[in-house]
Amino acid sequence: MKTLLNDDEIAASLAERLDRVAARFAGQLKSDLTPVNALARHVERYRGKMLRPTLVIISGWAVREGEPADEAIDARLDTLAAVVEMIHMATLVHDDVLDEAEMRRGGQTVNSLKGNETAVMLGDFLIASAFHLCSSIGLPWLNGALGETTTQLCSGEILQLTHRGDLKLAQATYADIIRRKTGVLSGACCGLAARLAHADASTTTLLERYGEDLGMAFQIQDDILDLVGDERVVGKTLGIDLQKGKLTLPIVIHLSRATPSIREETVTAIADCDRATLLRLVAGTDSLVAARTEAMRFVESAKGNLTPIRESAAKRLLSSIADATVERSY
Amino acid sequence: MKTLLNDDEIAASLAERLDRVAARFAGQLKSDLTPVNALARHVERYRGKMLRPTLVIISGWAVREGEPADEAIDARLDTLAAVVEMIHMATLVHDDVLDEAEMRRGGQTVNSLKGNETAVMLGDFLIASAFHLCSSIGLPWLNGALGETTTQLCSGEILQLTHRGDLKLAQATYADIIRRKTGVLSGACCGLAARLAHADASTTTLLERYGEDLGMAFQIQDDILDLVGDERVVGKTLGIDLQKGKLTLPIVIHLSRATPSIREETVTAIADCDRATLLRLVAGTDSLVAARTEAMRFVESAKGNLTPIRESAAKRLLSSIADATVERSY
Repeated sequence: MKTLLNDDEIAASLAERLDRVAARFAGQLKSDLTPVNALARHVERYRGKMLRPTLVIISGWAVREGEPADEAIDARLDTLAAVVEMIHMATLVHDDVLDEAEMRRGGQTVNSLKGNETAVMLGDFLIASAFHLCSSIGLPWLNGALGETTTQLCSGEILQLTHRGDLKLAQATYADIIRRKTGVLSGACCGLAARLAHADASTTTLLERYGEDLGMAFQIQDDILDLVGDERVVGKTLGIDLQKGKLTLPIVIHLSRATPSIREETVTAIADCDRATLLRLVAGTDSLVAARTEAMRFVESAKGNLTPIRESAAKRLLSSIADATVERSY
Repeated sequence: MKTLLNDDEIAASLAERLDRVAARFAGQLKSDLTPVNALARHVERYRGKMLRPTLVIISGWAVREGEPADEAIDARLDTLAAVVEMIHMATLVHDDVLDEAEMRRGGQTVNSLKGNETAVMLGDFLIASAFHLCSSIGLPWLNGALGETTTQLCSGEILQLTHRGDLKLAQATYADIIRRKTGVLSGACCGLAARLAHADASTTTLLERYGEDLGMAFQIQDDILDLVGDERVVGKTLGIDLQKGKLTLPIVIHLSRATPSIREETVTAIADCDRATLLRLVAGTDSLVAARTEAMRFVESAKGNLTPIRESAAKRLLSSIADATVERSY
C-alpha cells in the first residue's frame, strides 16, 4: 500500500478492499443449485460490521507500512478476509438455531424463515466453503491454522453449552469460553494476516494478541448490550442469551456478589426475561460497571500490544477500532 | 503392500489398518476440555461399518499392487481415511438433529442425550477437526478437494430439504440429491486415495467413479431398508425419512406409478408412518423391485469401472464390497 495515508485515504481504501472481499465471498458461495444461491444471498444480508475482514486488511497494512505494493499479498489477504467472514457467518447461522432467535441485523433469521434443518445445513455449507476457499491460497500451514481456530471456536461453544444455566459460573471459566468462542478467531484474523504479509514472528504475535484482546472486549460489550441495549438499535432479539441459560459477564459478576435473596430475585428475572428488573438488580451490585471496567481492560491490553509496532495510519486505525468496540450501542 | 495377498491375509491387513485409522481419528479429537472429550467418545460409538475408511485403504492397495511398500503413502492414506470418516460422522450427527432421531447404531443419538444445540456444535467440531487433520498431510490440492466434496454434500442436503414433502419429486432429482449427499463423498474416498497412492489419471477417475456408483447403490439400499428393514437389525429408528418428508426411491417410483386413489392412500400411510400399509401399496406397483433393480444397476456400474484396473486381491475386495452393499440387511 501507499505509505503515510491520511485518515480519509485509509477509509476510502478500506471501503474498496471490503468490496473486493464481499465479491470474493459471494463468488465462493455461487452454486449450480438455485436454493443454495437463495440461501447464500440471504446470508449476505447478515453481513454487518465486517469487523473480521476489516481486521485482516488493516493488519496487513500495518505490517506492510513502508513496503512497495504487492498484489499477490493483497489478493491472499482479500481471500483470508472472505474466509474468516464465512466462518463467522456460519457461527451466526448456527447460533441462531441454538438460540431459537428470530431476528438478526433487523431481518428474519434463516431458522425462523426456512426451519432449523436448512439453517444447520447452510451453516455446514458455509464452513465447508470457507475451508475450500482457504485452500485456494495454497498454503498448508494456513489451512492448519484455520482448522485449529475453528475447532477452538466449537470447543468454546460446547463449553458454554455444558455450563448453561450454571449460576455459579466462575469468571475465569466465562473468560475461557469467550476467548475460545470469540477471541481466538479475531486473534487469527490479525495474526494470520500478519503472517501472510510476511511479518516477523514478534509482530505476528503482537497483532494476534491485539486481535484476541479486541475479541474479548467485543464479546463483553455484546453481553452488556444484551442487558442494556435497545433492540431497534442493536437489530437483534435481546435477552435471549440469558433466557437460554448463557450467563453474560454483568450477570456472572452480579451473581458472585449478590445476597441469597437478591440471587433468587435475579434467577426469577432471568427466567421471565425481565430486563428492567435485571438492570435494577445488577446496578445494585455495581456489576454493570465492573463488566464495563473489564471490557476497558481488554481494550487497553489490545492497544498495548500495538505499542512496539511502527507508527502508521493503519496502526492508528487498529487503535481506534479497539476504542470503538466498547463505545458502540449496536 | 505385499502383493498377491490371499483373501485371509487382506482381511487381517485391513483390520490392522482400520485400527490405525481409529487411533488417528481419536487422536485428532482429543481436547483439553473434558466435555469435548466425552462427546468425542460418544461419537466413536457411532462408528459402524467404517465403509469410507475401508474404501480409502483398499483403493490405495489396488493402486499400489506390485509396488514396494511405502510407509509415507500408507500414513497419508490412514490420515485421509480418518478425515473422511470424521466428515461422515459430522453428517450423521447433524442428520440426527434434522431427523429428530433418537437411535443410531443401537445407542441414543447425541441430540436426544445432550440436546440439539450440543449436537449442532459437535457436528461443527467434527467438520473443523476433519479439515484440520486433512491439512496435516500438507497438500493444498487435497484440502481443496475435501472442501469441494463437503460443499457438494451440504448442497445435496439443502436440495433434499427444499424438496421435502414434494410428492412429485422426479427420479432424476432424487438421483441428483443422493449423488451429492452420498455418492460424491464415497467417490472422493476412492479417487483421493488413488491420487495419494500416485495412480495415473485414468485409474484415479475409474476408482472415483467406482466409489460414486457404490455410494448411490448404498443410499438406495438404505432407502429400501427404511421401508422393509427390521429396526433391531438396522439399529436405528426406521420410517423417519418418510415421515420427515424425505422421499425414498421405492416411494418416488411408486408415486409416479400410482393411481390417484392409491396416491392418496400412500400419502396417509406416510403421514401415519404406517410401514405395513406402505409396503403393501408399494408392492402393488412393483416399485420395491424397481428400486432394487436400480441399486443393482449401480452395483454393476461400480464393478464395471474396476474392469480396466489390473487384477489384485484388493480389486476383488472392492468388487465384493459392491455386491455386499445391496445384500446387507443392516
